[in-house]
Amino acid sequence: MTILDIIEKKKIKQELSAEEINYFVEGFTKGEIPDYQASALLMAILLNGMTDGETFALTDAMLRSGDVVDMSSLGGTVVDKHSTGGIGDSTTLALAPILACCGVFVAKMSGRGLGFTGGTIDKLESIPGFDTALSEDEFFGVVKKVGCAVIGQTANLAPADKKIYALRDVTGTVNAIPLICSSIMSKKLASGADTILLDVKYGSGAFMPTPESALELAEKMVAIGTLAGKRIGALITDMQQPLSDHVGNSLEIVGIIDVLNGKKNRLYYEIREVAVKLLALTGKYDEKSAEQAFQRAIDSGNALNKFAEMVTAQHGDESYIHNPDKFALGQRDAVLADKDGYVTGMAAADIGRAVTHLGGGRMTKSDVIDFSVGVVMQVAIGSKVNKGDVLCEVYHNGKGLDEAKTLISNSVFIGGDKPAEHKIAYAYVDKNGVTLY
Amino acid sequence: MTILDIIEKKKIKQELSAEEINYFVEGFTKGEIPDYQASALLMAILLNGMTDGETFALTDAMLRSGDVVDMSSLGGTVVDKHSTGGIGDSTTLALAPILACCGVFVAKMSGRGLGFTGGTIDKLESIPGFDTALSEDEFFGVVKKVGCAVIGQTANLAPADKKIYALRDVTGTVNAIPLICSSIMSKKLASGADTILLDVKYGSGAFMPTPESALELAEKMVAIGTLAGKRIGALITDMQQPLSDHVGNSLEIVGIIDVLNGKKNRLYYEIREVAVKLLALTGKYDEKSAEQAFQRAIDSGNALNKFAEMVTAQHGDESYIHNPDKFALGQRDAVLADKDGYVTGMAAADIGRAVTHLGGGRMTKSDVIDFSVGVVMQVAIGSKVNKGDVLCEVYHNGKGLDEAKTLISNSVFIGGDKPAEHKIAYAYVDKNGVTLY
Repeated sequence: MTILDIIEKKKIKQELSAEEINYFVEGFTKGEIPDYQASALLMAILLNGMTDGETFALTDAMLRSGDVVDMSSLGGTVVDKHSTGGIGDSTTLALAPILACCGVFVAKMSGRGLGFTGGTIDKLESIPGFDTALSEDEFFGVVKKVGCAVIGQTANLAPADKKIYALRDVTGTVNAIPLICSSIMSKKLASGADTILLDVKYGSGAFMPTPESALELAEKMVAIGTLAGKRIGALITDMQQPLSDHVGNSLEIVGIIDVLNGKKNRLYYEIREVAVKLLALTGKYDEKSAEQAFQRAIDSGNALNKFAEMVTAQHGDESYIHNPDKFALGQRDAVLADKDGYVTGMAAADIGRAVTHLGGGRMTKSDVIDFSVGVVMQVAIGSKVNKGDVLCEVYHNGKGLDEAKTLISNSVFIGGDKPAEHKIAYAYVDKNGVTLY
Repeated sequence: MTILDIIEKKKIKQELSAEEINYFVEGFTKGEIPDYQASALLMAILLNGMTDGETFALTDAMLRSGDVVDMSSLGGTVVDKHSTGGIGDSTTLALAPILACCGVFVAKMSGRGLGFTGGTIDKLESIPGFDTALSEDEFFGVVKKVGCAVIGQTANLAPADKKIYALRDVTGTVNAIPLICSSIMSKKLASGADTILLDVKYGSGAFMPTPESALELAEKMVAIGTLAGKRIGALITDMQQPLSDHVGNSLEIVGIIDVLNGKKNRLYYEIREVAVKLLALTGKYDEKSAEQAFQRAIDSGNALNKFAEMVTAQHGDESYIHNPDKFALGQRDAVLADKDGYVTGMAAADIGRAVTHLGGGRMTKSDVIDFSVGVVMQVAIGSKVNKGDVLCEVYHNGKGLDEAKTLISNSVFIGGDKPAEHKIAYAYVDKNGVTLY
């Protein structure tokens, strides 16, 4: 077996064996296969595709390149939820305590933000004292005691993915379904949960532009997760506007506290949908009892208390959770509507970019984040506005204000006709197939 | 413009502009674009193709990466013929003097052999004293005086091609029509002839397996040459068996002397076909007068004398041309038929490999060639043979004899039914279109 044989095979659209895929992943990770051969193969994969069997073998080889977290010592159902990323996507922050209240463990390793998307870890660090770098022992201890914990990725998960992704990034081979799928799934499968709900976003603020492309990716990931023996499903959800009205770090915590207090906005309904599907996937609930459990967790105040409990367990100051006015925010400014009409659409990614301009996100990995800046949208797609109405509040500390306001102003489209209603979810897929909403 | 933009465009099958193609060729040749990005682009080109306009731009950028030979000082029509390579393909050796006798200049830069194909330069060097490394001035002097000369490539022709080919060779991107085409044509167009006949081989001893694939390549090359303002045509010819019965270095000179003496074998008819098409392309002849001129050159003995004249002008011993028995050959052995029947096919490449095993070719660039070894086929496809008949004479000096005999024995297929006749040429293509034979 040589890498050239493998390239030749994929070039003529033949199926690669697990041995061949493993040979590539191992050889490339060890530096034995040079970048120029790997990039030729990646381009052939992008253009000629991979079967589910091949994608599973690729995922498996990548996950075996690093640590595989074992959560069996928790002695219960461990759930995980993965979003493909978007603007104002703070669902994890509410889901962790809600799901813990419903009797499943949430031991989540999350990422930091880069570019126009925020990161769960950054948002949590806006709570004074909150420690996202617990040791593995302490992390497991918090999960066992509280039911949930969220930390930054500590284990050496799928190092092959890091190396392959770095090459994809500079060779035009990022947007290939089997490569995206194996990149996400290798880390998900290595991180130890037995039940996984994928939240695959589509739209102007997401990686996949259309619901159809998001569904294609979702089906592939569900197939791979199922082959790996996981209980897994995927929701295809709308990211044509920020998911939370609050975009920014401290601001998104404030938005999440609203939801945990029962405020029924789009973020609330999305979180409920994810929670219900995830709880149903575990087999401990059906959809009806899952929704009841969700409602109880919110209405009883247990979910908010659980969030405060997790904050305390991770050394954060829980008084901020009970009194969100304590979060320091920047000066307030506003973006106003320049005409009458309906909000017909949004360039959601640009709203994310606006927050980055304000200092609330990273352009490069080494940038320091200003937790106190961000935006609070006052309108959503379908809102009726009059000229001069506030479209969006902007919290800033002077930096990047003009760029941010211009970006936001240009990214909220106002037209004469009321647009069709935007559903939260487009489809759900699990091993039983696709349900369109 | 960035290389990533260019990769993205080709990835989604958009046409690249000449500026973009030039940016790639210049940047890669200078080492500014890394191998891993170039190989991703090459794979995208292989899988998504290139239009004639793109292939012309690629060819042009590659030829401008080095010297362009100017033959206008010769003050006449300069013709060139390029074969895509095969076994026993010694046509150049006869064509050069024949065409010179017909009043056109042949100033040919040829290559050395590698792998299973022989090289014109190696064959010529089997004539004692023959100098294939004339200075440019001396080369032009011989062409002007004799009408023809054949030397090794001296000028720095298309260095971009060398660099791109080296990468293609290790990334599975060799067999892409636009890349093969630009590789051949960049050197052809840089080498200064105004009239070019391409001899594109197909079959078991050629680069292109089928006549259809050879025709596709030929059409592309003719389109590119025409766009470059050349008079150009291409014959698609059979390489399912060695073109000359003589395969080896001294042996192929002997075979060529037979042809120049009027021996009407397959090699003769192929040479005639190429000469007639090439002379007609110049516009100085129509096909009928071209065939008459060809015949006169042979029948008069002028072509043989011209060959001897060229040998002398290039410091070789012309007595070998008049008395080919002077060529030292190895010991003679033979491969015999192991059953009765008809020769139904040959693995021509393996006959080339057999000669390499005997020492008559190179496995690596630094190998030294034994001019005195080779084979003389006693049968062709369609020959009737009886068990024990000689299929092939083998000239050897001990080295590799068993391997060579086994290879040859296995590469001459004998069956019960007489096969259909093999035509020399399958098609001809020029700017007026394709003529199937």
